[in-house]
Amino acid sequence: MNRAALGFRALARGIGYVVVVSLALLATGLALRIAQVSFFYEPAHPEHANQKASYLAGISPAAPETAPNLVVILFDDLGKGDLSLYGNRLIDTPRIDRVADEGVSLSNFYSAAPVCTPSRAALLTGRYPIRSNTHQHVFFSEGSLGSLVRRTLGVGNEMPADEITIAEALGAAGYATGMVGKWHLGGLPGHLPNDFGFDEYYGVLWSNDMTPLHVYRDREIVIRDESDHDTGSYRDEDVPLEGGIDQSSLTAHYTREAIAFIERNRERPFFLYFSHTFPHVPHFASREHAGSSDGGIYGDVVEDLDRSVGAVLDAIDAAGLGERTLVLITSDNGADYNGNPGAFRGRKGETYEGGQRVPLLARFPGRLPAGVVRDAMAMNIDLFPTLLALAGAPLPDDRIIDGRDLFPLLENGGASAHDTLFYFPVVGGSPDAARRGSFKYLRESGDPGRSKPQLTHVGLDAENHNLILRFPEEASHLANALDSMDATLERNPRGLL
Amino acid sequence: MNRAALGFRALARGIGYVVVVSLALLATGLALRIAQVSFFYEPAHPEHANQKASYLAGISPAAPETAPNLVVILFDDLGKGDLSLYGNRLIDTPRIDRVADEGVSLSNFYSAAPVCTPSRAALLTGRYPIRSNTHQHVFFSEGSLGSLVRRTLGVGNEMPADEITIAEALGAAGYATGMVGKWHLGGLPGHLPNDFGFDEYYGVLWSNDMTPLHVYRDREIVIRDESDHDTGSYRDEDVPLEGGIDQSSLTAHYTREAIAFIERNRERPFFLYFSHTFPHVPHFASREHAGSSDGGIYGDVVEDLDRSVGAVLDAIDAAGLGERTLVLITSDNGADYNGNPGAFRGRKGETYEGGQRVPLLARFPGRLPAGVVRDAMAMNIDLFPTLLALAGAPLPDDRIIDGRDLFPLLENGGASAHDTLFYFPVVGGSPDAARRGSFKYLRESGDPGRSKPQLTHVGLDAENHNLILRFPEEASHLANALDSMDATLERNPRGLL
Repeated sequence: MNRAALGFRALARGIGYVVVVSLALLATGLALRIAQVSFFYEPAHPEHANQKASYLAGISPAAPETAPNLVVILFDDLGKGDLSLYGNRLIDTPRIDRVADEGVSLSNFYSAAPVCTPSRAALLTGRYPIRSNTHQHVFFSEGSLGSLVRRTLGVGNEMPADEITIAEALGAAGYATGMVGKWHLGGLPGHLPNDFGFDEYYGVLWSNDMTPLHVYRDREIVIRDESDHDTGSYRDEDVPLEGGIDQSSLTAHYTREAIAFIERNRERPFFLYFSHTFPHVPHFASREHAGSSDGGIYGDVVEDLDRSVGAVLDAIDAAGLGERTLVLITSDNGADYNGNPGAFRGRKGETYEGGQRVPLLARFPGRLPAGVVRDAMAMNIDLFPTLLALAGAPLPDDRIIDGRDLFPLLENGGASAHDTLFYFPVVGGSPDAARRGSFKYLRESGDPGRSKPQLTHVGLDAENHNLILRFPEEASHLANALDSMDATLERNPRGLL
Repeated sequence: MNRAALGFRALARGIGYVVVVSLALLATGLALRIAQVSFFYEPAHPEHANQKASYLAGISPAAPETAPNLVVILFDDLGKGDLSLYGNRLIDTPRIDRVADEGVSLSNFYSAAPVCTPSRAALLTGRYPIRSNTHQHVFFSEGSLGSLVRRTLGVGNEMPADEITIAEALGAAGYATGMVGKWHLGGLPGHLPNDFGFDEYYGVLWSNDMTPLHVYRDREIVIRDESDHDTGSYRDEDVPLEGGIDQSSLTAHYTREAIAFIERNRERPFFLYFSHTFPHVPHFASREHAGSSDGGIYGDVVEDLDRSVGAVLDAIDAAGLGERTLVLITSDNGADYNGNPGAFRGRKGETYEGGQRVPLLARFPGRLPAGVVRDAMAMNIDLFPTLLALAGAPLPDDRIIDGRDLFPLLENGGASAHDTLFYFPVVGGSPDAARRGSFKYLRESGDPGRSKPQLTHVGLDAENHNLILRFPEEASHLANALDSMDATLERNPRGLL
């Protein structure tokens, strides 16, 4: 054999060894880690469980005759543009639109994240997602490949037990607390709706593209998902899953339960968290109205939601509770690919406005004016302090609450309670963007490979024209605000005091 | 050595051989191919050169006293929403907006592709991009890595010489033909503006993010690009290139040349193709007005374009040619990441409406009504038959012309001259989408991994809600139209008769 051939052989053998040994090491490490999380998984240790207990124990009961009822209706992936109120020309939402006529709507309201889990955690806890360790995408159903992957990566699959929800604080203040609909904050005992302050629960634990999607009443399965579909994976938006639950009646089930809860609790203050499954994909319209919307299946599903809102409001009014009930309507993030984000750039999953600018409609006859639009910015982290204040409950003082009481803005207008709001991405605890006044600074904008920081005027432009060189001081102020938020979060991600 | 160790060694050796031999074969093949295209490159053989020559020879001269002057002003990457006419609140374009007041605008006008080269080829030839072999992304500057890659892949880097442009047909009809601005249809002798029918040319051959970006007068360089920047690659939108040409005076140079052409030819019919460089990135505003727009650098650049349009119109009017000159204003595709696509989904590079729905403003005082908007759909492939008809020149009969005479629509309104229009992608000769009436069928819509066909009503919805199950017959009709277009194009991509 000549020298070239010998060299070639040695090279080939060397490369082969490296490839085979690397693969073998990788496989072994992965197998060990998977075995560890499969057999010995523990949710994150609650760091402030004692403080939580003493905070809840210290809340005084609200006066039953004056404490307002509090209802939050949350849609899943509903875009602002899905409502006829905001210009949709194919979908008709007269009952939701009427809430804007009868109450206050916020034109600059945000979800705390552009995706389900972190947004819902923020809404219920009043804190940016990273504080509740919900900042790494969504949780996946128990037993799914997704939950195994999450646990293998060490990013958690349930909200830590020491987080304090609106339901816990209001329950401590003597409210009846009920939840109907989608949870998406964990599936292990200790992390279920009933574990986070809800006296009553009816609904599904996961997004409707995840399996198994059992319907629970409290901790019991009342409608069992018999599908053997790959758990956690995407399904065609229009095709029912063999053996799966009948999603076409979910909105009706939810609505019935919500109304029953209201009627059952007409004599005492209540908090109802009505968290819809739709218009998240897959789409299943009620049989009664399927095909009736000009917006196709998506429109059918949204119009089902509109009828549900109408039925809930009618039930409140019929029970004589209209004037002592605050109803808030919002969405957990912007429109997905098949919804309408309105006049905004981006969609679900993005920190452009289209991913997080959502409706906020507030009806409270006698307490809030009718047909008024407020332009100051606010976020769903504000619901926690707002609802607690209405119930006379104090805020916890052992942890940072990022939200601010929204009620003065709803009632009287004026400036935002926030100097700066931060936009957190789908994955990760470092904010993508910050907004102060009408200026928004995005750390990365534009196509991959040529992205750069962008300063835009979100009041006059849908995040198109970069004004960074025009307003360098504003850009630098917001860039610094982002950097110092990063530093704070790195030192104290859970925001414990 | 035991059997396991022997097996491991054999496996490693086998894998190593496969890797090394594959890489060696690949490298050799690539080197041979690169050597071939570097030293022996020939543009595609013109298949219908003789027919072209006899077609041009057969065109009769237009009557000089009645033949209208024809001016096409083309912007690069201008989105509909970049104009104050279409709602921009940061950028002011009063002179362009005035054209809409003084003439006809089309609300459903398209570029033939969502990117420069194929759109420009379609505009000048009246044919879908694949007919002129310009359907594989954009051409890259001569000598760049991009042009080498294109040639190695065999996708061509210049429009074939047998294509017939508006300039050639109008020149044969006795028009003075001038081009000012960006070409982007090839850089080799035989494929330059002067080779495709323009008596006079002043401008750059490539996009302004490509180098070298010399400014030519006809075939001579008049401003040399002395940069040694990597050819063809992206540059920061705001940072001048060392040694590069002074892009901040490009719009002024172009405008001066365009006005001089008009003044020089006031006594005979002329065709002016004024193809701007901006607002394509990078952005360089005129020194005189830099910093004056509320839309930042992007706004400065667009407002420079607006002033240029005003100056050209003033020159036409000052020469007493207003009433015998048709001025058309359009863009080669929708807004890029930093422009405003208007109320449409998508941007440059996408076959959503935002990638291809562009302005078309037509001013022809006395011949066209003032302040009228027409809604029927049309495309820039229509300019070729429209301008030829106005000059009395026949259409070639040796090849398919996809465009239709647009003048009846401009003049009288009514239905589109097209039953169906096709949307071609950035890369590839198979259409992504088709539109008939208000329905658009996209073969793939939605996020990667869960994309599916989508039918939308583009008159009532910005391509959000999928109506495919609501209107299955319309969906199936358009899906079939796409399939039969594919079959036709596969048999005869150049559309030769």
